[in-house]
Amino acid sequence: MKYGFGIDLGGTTVKIAYFDETGKMLDKWEIPTVTENGGSRILPDIAESIRQYIDACGIADTAILGLGIGVPGPVNAKGVVNKCVNLGWGVFNISETLQSLTGFPVKAGNDANVAALGEFWKGGGQGCDNMVFVTLGTGVGGGIVVEGRLLHGAHGSGAEIGHMVLNRDETIPCNCGKRGCVEQYCSATGIVRMAKEYLARSEFPSVLRQKEELTCKDIFDAGKAGDPAAAAILDQFYNYMGEFLGNVCNVVNPEVVVIGGGVSKAGSMLLDGIQPYFQKYVFHAASAARFALASLGNDAGAYGAFKLALDAFG
Amino acid sequence: MKYGFGIDLGGTTVKIAYFDETGKMLDKWEIPTVTENGGSRILPDIAESIRQYIDACGIADTAILGLGIGVPGPVNAKGVVNKCVNLGWGVFNISETLQSLTGFPVKAGNDANVAALGEFWKGGGQGCDNMVFVTLGTGVGGGIVVEGRLLHGAHGSGAEIGHMVLNRDETIPCNCGKRGCVEQYCSATGIVRMAKEYLARSEFPSVLRQKEELTCKDIFDAGKAGDPAAAAILDQFYNYMGEFLGNVCNVVNPEVVVIGGGVSKAGSMLLDGIQPYFQKYVFHAASAARFALASLGNDAGAYGAFKLALDAFG
Repeated sequence: MKYGFGIDLGGTTVKIAYFDETGKMLDKWEIPTVTENGGSRILPDIAESIRQYIDACGIADTAILGLGIGVPGPVNAKGVVNKCVNLGWGVFNISETLQSLTGFPVKAGNDANVAALGEFWKGGGQGCDNMVFVTLGTGVGGGIVVEGRLLHGAHGSGAEIGHMVLNRDETIPCNCGKRGCVEQYCSATGIVRMAKEYLARSEFPSVLRQKEELTCKDIFDAGKAGDPAAAAILDQFYNYMGEFLGNVCNVVNPEVVVIGGGVSKAGSMLLDGIQPYFQKYVFHAASAARFALASLGNDAGAYGAFKLALDAFG
Repeated sequence: MKYGFGIDLGGTTVKIAYFDETGKMLDKWEIPTVTENGGSRILPDIAESIRQYIDACGIADTAILGLGIGVPGPVNAKGVVNKCVNLGWGVFNISETLQSLTGFPVKAGNDANVAALGEFWKGGGQGCDNMVFVTLGTGVGGGIVVEGRLLHGAHGSGAEIGHMVLNRDETIPCNCGKRGCVEQYCSATGIVRMAKEYLARSEFPSVLRQKEELTCKDIFDAGKAGDPAAAAILDQFYNYMGEFLGNVCNVVNPEVVVIGGGVSKAGSMLLDGIQPYFQKYVFHAASAARFALASLGNDAGAYGAFKLALDAFG
């Protein structure tokens, strides 16, 4: 039996997990992400933490097949990172660097893509060959699996579906600098913004008006409880999601669309809300895509990162 | 040296080409597509034509590595056709059927996807690993290559990008039954429709008003000659194309976007018109995609069909 590590590198913490080759997670822990000095300590910290773990557990180096790592930025199939703004990183080959620090072979991918691979392997996409994964959190991320393999894209930016344009006439800029991106409407942030706009322009009574700091959860809770303003806001969100995912499925034609991220905690209500709009916008030949919730939560990245290593070195 | 056949099955003619394994087209001819009786004669006709050719040229059966065929409808990776309305076909495995008729192994794909593979191999996408191919003709078709492999999709409907939604508020239905599809604006038919609408609602003088039967070529010719109405119509088309291809590239992140079909005869003027709008709508990390014109014309399907066979049996 061989073993390996899956590493999910985030802006504040690094999640590290130890797996056996069947994909069983045997252990996991976190270390802080130190972004000072251009993020120069991040990879040495990871290497040291893994070395300490191996030594403490008495694991033979020869039992380790390799490491996989998900990175919050574009990474191409060769492991070249093309700037991670929130880590302070420029352009370099992360696979080579982390390999020389640890002595183990390393495979890297974009964090959203890697999380998609995790859900494909052990989560909501299990048993499928083609999957679209979308995370609805502070932003909107994505990952695509085509015939069992992650779509990296030519520049490591495959599946940046949160920045597809939904509203060419939008006047407010997205974080990316463009206007009218999916992320401006379908992220948790976007839903709250749409709700505030709705409440400001309508006279409808709503429990949402009593909230000091309106959250996405408040809106789903109020919608579930029958608040008509919340229902109207969610309907707008479902409509956008249906068009957005319909368009993605017209490109990819997957068996399954897996939805993760904080917003997916709304559960089946979310899937039921999106489905009719998805059917309205998707091309008939791609309309059989099944919808599922992500099931690995914060572990998706670690699972996917290890799977990258397993596919490459296992 | 091995040889094989690439077959491009269309609604009126079947194009058949004979290749050597380096991809050199040695010969090509056409036979009519007989769609009567549910299209039951189509495959026997193809098998007979190939058999006659082999016998006439004295080719040994053992020199043939196999056949590839592009079909005007969805085909999954296993060769199951899921209805070709204009051939009268239902659901069946075309690879198995044509193999039993010819004695040679057969690989099948959707015609637009197969043409994409041809352009990827020997045309506008040569030397790339990731490509988006779009054909602008009577309709809008597409094909996508990811890390050298055709994206078939779970149900054989990958890259149906002509039916992504551009205008959710469109009232006129698309041929597919939905409203606001790319095909309604970016096909030759769509451009002419937009032009007629523009001319009807504006008072602008234009050479286009003198045409009895306005064609897409008229509009490009007038635009090139400086006709302001034609320029405004084309600007609207370029804007749609930029948004559409920006969204596709945000999903796929290709090195190259290859444009084919009748509209692509407009040449570099077309690429120059789309580029600024593409840059407006695409996510920065996917913005490096190069634009190119398809270069194989009507032979793209035969090249791609043979490449399917070569990849599978070569």
